[in-house]
Amino acid sequence: MSVLIKKAKIVDAGKATEGDVYIEGNRIVDVGDVKNGKHDVVIDGKGKAVIPGLINTHTHAAMVLFRGYADDMPLMEWLQEKIWPLEKKLKPDHIYCGTKLACLEMIKSGTTAFNDMYFEVESIARAVEEMGMRACISSAFFDFFDEQRLEENLKRVEEDLKKLKNFKNVIPAVGPHAPYTVSLKGLKASAELARNYDALIHFHLAETKEEIEEFRKKNGRSIVKALDEIGFLNRRLIAAHCVWLSESEIELMAERKVSISHCPVSNMKLCVGSTLDYSAMKKSKLNVTLGTDGAASNNNLNMFEEMKFAALLQKYHYNDPTLLNAKEAFEIATVNGAKALGVKAGLVEPGYLADLVILDLKKPCLTPGHNLIADIVYSTNGTCDTVIIDGKVVMENGIVEGEEEIMEDAQKAALDLIS
Amino acid sequence: MSVLIKKAKIVDAGKATEGDVYIEGNRIVDVGDVKNGKHDVVIDGKGKAVIPGLINTHTHAAMVLFRGYADDMPLMEWLQEKIWPLEKKLKPDHIYCGTKLACLEMIKSGTTAFNDMYFEVESIARAVEEMGMRACISSAFFDFFDEQRLEENLKRVEEDLKKLKNFKNVIPAVGPHAPYTVSLKGLKASAELARNYDALIHFHLAETKEEIEEFRKKNGRSIVKALDEIGFLNRRLIAAHCVWLSESEIELMAERKVSISHCPVSNMKLCVGSTLDYSAMKKSKLNVTLGTDGAASNNNLNMFEEMKFAALLQKYHYNDPTLLNAKEAFEIATVNGAKALGVKAGLVEPGYLADLVILDLKKPCLTPGHNLIADIVYSTNGTCDTVIIDGKVVMENGIVEGEEEIMEDAQKAALDLIS
Repeated sequence: MSVLIKKAKIVDAGKATEGDVYIEGNRIVDVGDVKNGKHDVVIDGKGKAVIPGLINTHTHAAMVLFRGYADDMPLMEWLQEKIWPLEKKLKPDHIYCGTKLACLEMIKSGTTAFNDMYFEVESIARAVEEMGMRACISSAFFDFFDEQRLEENLKRVEEDLKKLKNFKNVIPAVGPHAPYTVSLKGLKASAELARNYDALIHFHLAETKEEIEEFRKKNGRSIVKALDEIGFLNRRLIAAHCVWLSESEIELMAERKVSISHCPVSNMKLCVGSTLDYSAMKKSKLNVTLGTDGAASNNNLNMFEEMKFAALLQKYHYNDPTLLNAKEAFEIATVNGAKALGVKAGLVEPGYLADLVILDLKKPCLTPGHNLIADIVYSTNGTCDTVIIDGKVVMENGIVEGEEEIMEDAQKAALDLIS
Repeated sequence: MSVLIKKAKIVDAGKATEGDVYIEGNRIVDVGDVKNGKHDVVIDGKGKAVIPGLINTHTHAAMVLFRGYADDMPLMEWLQEKIWPLEKKLKPDHIYCGTKLACLEMIKSGTTAFNDMYFEVESIARAVEEMGMRACISSAFFDFFDEQRLEENLKRVEEDLKKLKNFKNVIPAVGPHAPYTVSLKGLKASAELARNYDALIHFHLAETKEEIEEFRKKNGRSIVKALDEIGFLNRRLIAAHCVWLSESEIELMAERKVSISHCPVSNMKLCVGSTLDYSAMKKSKLNVTLGTDGAASNNNLNMFEEMKFAALLQKYHYNDPTLLNAKEAFEIATVNGAKALGVKAGLVEPGYLADLVILDLKKPCLTPGHNLIADIVYSTNGTCDTVIIDGKVVMENGIVEGEEEIMEDAQKAALDLIS
């Protein structure tokens, strides 16, 4: 299949230009002045912009079912009284319906790939494949420092990794939950599993001060140092949050080629007490990417909104309006995310995956259009026109096939859970 | 003219229910189970929610022309090198075109009334009237502590107040800019003008620490105390920002029935160094309202986004997830704003102005819909279906009459300014 987008504005973290974009199969083949020929799909780019699809590097997609169920509460009360009781009732079909809704929401707001951590990976992968998205799916586990529990979980995770290999555009991952729920032995085993199955690792790290301090009290050294000793820090790791790292820890993680996922909305809503040290990360060349976290703590999966929060939270926290400028916010949401997932995407360049978003620029909030990257980060509400993933048009003129049914099914699943 | 909205969800800061909303002329006449009769307009509310229109209590509407022109810069450099040189070139027609674009953007994102401070009030008022909006328009002035300049400005402002009386749904106001640009004499004269013309006052207050400290150094007392001495603090005043007030100043302003306009996005983007002490304001019963500030420092006029920023910034800054909950965020953006403007709006109740917004709930980010107020504050991107102002439908199914031309004219005006 071939797609030609004619005469659009083309914007990625490296350029802002105008021209055509030509796609063959699942790749961008040509950008600029493309000779007319016969193409399966031709899209008029007049008054539109082509940008790389946004990449959400930390979420728990199916948690959209809990959206708005409990807000404005202290973290532990929220988890223990509201979220965990619901999660205990989750069946594979809930997760399938929830993940489809999440995919729909992401496509509508210009996200083409995401990094998920949840349970029932086959249900997740089936939803992802049906929606035509790209995703890294990790099989979440907790051992709660119990050897037997660890053993059972590792068996399940290994089976999950094998199952995930069967799905299209799915990147398998191991999902040890966090330092306070998984033993060092479990983390070491996760790193080994990831290596053996050529998988990624999705992990929560340094989200709260208590987590960092308790680890040090229990283990006599910093969590980052301990992770390095067991070979956990490497290019396979995507560590979410990371708001409580020291400069030397940031440098070590950069050396080890770790990627981190920044989740500013969730961090603000759940009051983790600090924010990313983006300047130190930039200096160390640590790969910073962007995530929404689950909808229960956001409460949406809108990466455009997340870019704005990321840029403004840096400025506010460090009292410097020049920090994390619009171009950098766009970069962490696109090409850096692709790097974390190990896919050649995030730029509108020949040879890159055709994971693209087309924005209609005829919107009041995108007018007059002095600077398209600034408009994308600070002004748009994230409404997208057309979304192409892996070379296929998954949304056209704002409509995804079967969207009403997906919303209805998810609503039924959510009502079933709280009944 | 009469409008009947049938069988919708009805949500305001005081209730969440279902039923019909019946409008006659510019007022809501009945809410609940309305008997069918003959109505000029009947709107099917199935799968939709009716909410009060949002009220933006601090903006400089025409500055949408500068959207994205300069970002991520230190405040003074941004003003002196970028914004002020452009503002010097502004002609009445630029302001008219810019304000129309701003009105269009506000209507599209569910704002029905706003509080503006800018120049050329007749151009602003003409745009507001043509767009069918409600606005408080203040004639901005600076005297820079120069008596002659003050005299000239007061004459112009008085003329402006008279002119503004001729426009429909326009509330006239005096707009002394800020404590660091207007003398106490100018502020006292503003209070007198406002009283004489039954007008409001729109003012920037306590936006930065420097402003507060310099005033005290120069005048030997706090700005709030000085304002009280000259009779400036009263129910006519809407003071924007107010992030550097002490608890006793907050109490005094509450006693004097002042309204304040919180602008979290602008405060974060421009790095004012602190945020609102919402808890103290709530305790004192100070009327807190919400504003976007101008698009040059936001960069949009989306009040849904602003509610989310307001709620999350409180939580983050004070490290307490229970602060400024969704219902309170909705309240400051609706009924509190109406109180500041002195209009009976902001609730979906009989006798209130028919300034209403209809949201289509069949959106992924509003599914499953456990809590509509939480969804409105934390999840929606602000896309609205239908907007009614003063009993008239100004947007239907997301379309405002003449919107393409408004965008084109504003774009031309913006290009003319930077050429």
